[in-house]
Amino acid sequence: MSSKPAIGFCGLGAMGFGMATHLIKQGYTVTGFDVWAPTLEKFKAAGGTPSTSLSESAKDKQYYICMVATAQQAQTAIFGDDGIVKGLPKGATLLLTSTVPSAYAKSVEKELKDIGRDDIFFIDAPVSGGAIRAADGTLSIMAGASSEAISKGKFLLDELTAPSKLFIVEGGVGGGSNLKMVHQVLAAIQILAVSEAFGFAARLGLNGKDVREAVIAGKAWSWMFENRSVRTLSEDYFPGASAVTIILKDTGIITSTARLHNFPTPLCSIAEQVYLAGLDKGFGPQDDAGLVRLWTNTPVSSIESTLSDSEKQSKLDLVTDLLAAIHLVSAVESITFAKHVGLPLPQLYELAVEAAGGSAMFKEFGAKIIPVLEGEDSGEGNVLEEYLQGLKKAVEEAQSMKCPLFLGSGTLNLLLQAGKSEDLASLLKLYTV
Amino acid sequence: MSSKPAIGFCGLGAMGFGMATHLIKQGYTVTGFDVWAPTLEKFKAAGGTPSTSLSESAKDKQYYICMVATAQQAQTAIFGDDGIVKGLPKGATLLLTSTVPSAYAKSVEKELKDIGRDDIFFIDAPVSGGAIRAADGTLSIMAGASSEAISKGKFLLDELTAPSKLFIVEGGVGGGSNLKMVHQVLAAIQILAVSEAFGFAARLGLNGKDVREAVIAGKAWSWMFENRSVRTLSEDYFPGASAVTIILKDTGIITSTARLHNFPTPLCSIAEQVYLAGLDKGFGPQDDAGLVRLWTNTPVSSIESTLSDSEKQSKLDLVTDLLAAIHLVSAVESITFAKHVGLPLPQLYELAVEAAGGSAMFKEFGAKIIPVLEGEDSGEGNVLEEYLQGLKKAVEEAQSMKCPLFLGSGTLNLLLQAGKSEDLASLLKLYTV
Repeated sequence: MSSKPAIGFCGLGAMGFGMATHLIKQGYTVTGFDVWAPTLEKFKAAGGTPSTSLSESAKDKQYYICMVATAQQAQTAIFGDDGIVKGLPKGATLLLTSTVPSAYAKSVEKELKDIGRDDIFFIDAPVSGGAIRAADGTLSIMAGASSEAISKGKFLLDELTAPSKLFIVEGGVGGGSNLKMVHQVLAAIQILAVSEAFGFAARLGLNGKDVREAVIAGKAWSWMFENRSVRTLSEDYFPGASAVTIILKDTGIITSTARLHNFPTPLCSIAEQVYLAGLDKGFGPQDDAGLVRLWTNTPVSSIESTLSDSEKQSKLDLVTDLLAAIHLVSAVESITFAKHVGLPLPQLYELAVEAAGGSAMFKEFGAKIIPVLEGEDSGEGNVLEEYLQGLKKAVEEAQSMKCPLFLGSGTLNLLLQAGKSEDLASLLKLYTV
Repeated sequence: MSSKPAIGFCGLGAMGFGMATHLIKQGYTVTGFDVWAPTLEKFKAAGGTPSTSLSESAKDKQYYICMVATAQQAQTAIFGDDGIVKGLPKGATLLLTSTVPSAYAKSVEKELKDIGRDDIFFIDAPVSGGAIRAADGTLSIMAGASSEAISKGKFLLDELTAPSKLFIVEGGVGGGSNLKMVHQVLAAIQILAVSEAFGFAARLGLNGKDVREAVIAGKAWSWMFENRSVRTLSEDYFPGASAVTIILKDTGIITSTARLHNFPTPLCSIAEQVYLAGLDKGFGPQDDAGLVRLWTNTPVSSIESTLSDSEKQSKLDLVTDLLAAIHLVSAVESITFAKHVGLPLPQLYELAVEAAGGSAMFKEFGAKIIPVLEGEDSGEGNVLEEYLQGLKKAVEEAQSMKCPLFLGSGTLNLLLQAGKSEDLASLLKLYTV
């Protein structure tokens, strides 16, 4: 019999199932709840203890992990008539690992107090990394809580994360969700950028394989591009690995929180509208890489390029220039929002540079943006001009082909709004008035 | 026999045919060229002299009007092997009434000089008002030229325009096209706003007739909404009266000229991408009012509202708040661009307030924006807050319904970028760095 504590778990989806079964493999007894019966059977086969009642799944558990899909589901799971808090013993530790608005995470803390259950140690701990890393216990986790709660839950956070991938955010509950949110600013923009770039490239007559090679070799590289493009090239969208609805949900958290804060997120908002347009086309449950079909119905890997080598190169340059500029401004949008919600910027940098939000431009410009926002650098000096010029050519070419570039044109307008100096300080000011 | 001079005319499309036949009715002898043979027959039946050669149509004509669709067509018509200048006698007056980039109009003047034909008095004179007003001789015309050329051509401009609808722009050739362009900033944004508002309203469960009534009664009124909504309600899109390709062409002139000037046009750029998305759906040759089908396939006049009166009113308020905010920022985008290209702002105001770009918000805020841009008013004072709050509610509701609001969310981000003071000065600065 295990000497490790018993864990309660609810939300056995792709991520949750991986996390819960990883804990089982590490020797924990895990009681799992899910509304989907076949999942419970699978969970039992994997060595878990299935439960058909939330309160029962929490009974006598000093540790509980809630990994449902949305804040709305979390609210029912935690506080519903048969909810988790009904079962949790005094002094238990509750981890909410779903991606939710920071304001929601704070409301959980408040409601626990309001109903006289502030004996519960609550940790706001959204995760990142995908189903494979969930099952390996090598997720990234962004955790915010009281120091007492963190002390209690630290061993569990350690079990679920890779070394150096646990980011404990100062400031208590809400900080974890905020850090995840500003990371997702990068994801929200860069996921759509993959399809916009492939769609543009297809209309330029470029084969998708050539595009992938050119993008991942240099300044246009992003983690999302490298990851998603595999599925773009094989049209692996049904369902693929990450549905449009997932990034749309995260994008909605960003833009709704931004509205609450009176903070502009122009590129995320553009991405959100295009995701919604994809939803209208029925792409919601399909992989987000399939959004390229908003531009072309021809599989991008089957495009036969008739271009000369030099023509091909100059067209590939348009695509990489498009992406580099989008990634640059996405870095600005993410880091300025992080500053606005009071997050430590180096922590975001450390997290994102090696995570799903990473890009060559984030790496290079993140390191330049942070000192400006922290008052250690003036941000003067024309560092944006080359990206502006490259992007202009891409947008001009797209216009002549009647190819929509939602993010590309939005990014161009932001660079133009920054004005003649084309320095970082001016671009940052668009977000920090 | 007429004592009025003989006129040459090319481009007998909907607008050109009306203009040319109006001149015939006024007693002019008009020789008309068009590439489309049936049109020439119709022109003959209307009393015109058809010609199948451009240079022939210009032979011995002291006055010539070129009303083709694009700058590319104009270039061939004017300077081609069988072009107009081959036929025009010494000292003739040539009016280019097509909507073209200002840079193109200037290039015509230069090319005339380069080929030794600066004896020709060239007038850059784009028109506005639609086919009915063209045939009535009550168009608006925006004319730029040397004072000698204006003197020569004035009687013709007067024949084609309504009293007080001839706008002679200072600064020579290019000014007419620039004035038309900044007017079309309003048109480009407000045409899409019609469909975005109806699409949003449809998803709110509102009947299109109720929407039209609420919009045209108050602050959300625009000339475009009043005009287009007639066709939206009757689904009169095939071909309707004004194709998507027409406003897309004008939008392209705006954004490409803006790029040349390093000027941001964020809302026009958003509109352009959505027009391109409409093109991809095959809507190009159909009426622009049909873009509402990007949001709903149900005819908006057939939606049966099950809402209570107060629910209906609060949803109608969301729609009018959406439009008012978009129209407000479209006024800013138009007027700041006018300033950037050196146009006299009161002239734009006088033109647009009673033309197709007019809106209740343009009327109110145009009068506030111009003194700020002319340094006569500080632009301080929180005048934007109520529009920001109204728009936020609309965007929030749209988000909860998963309804894309391309212009609405773009407008919201610009208002948020303007920052806490929510004064005009801050909003204008986004365009005038």
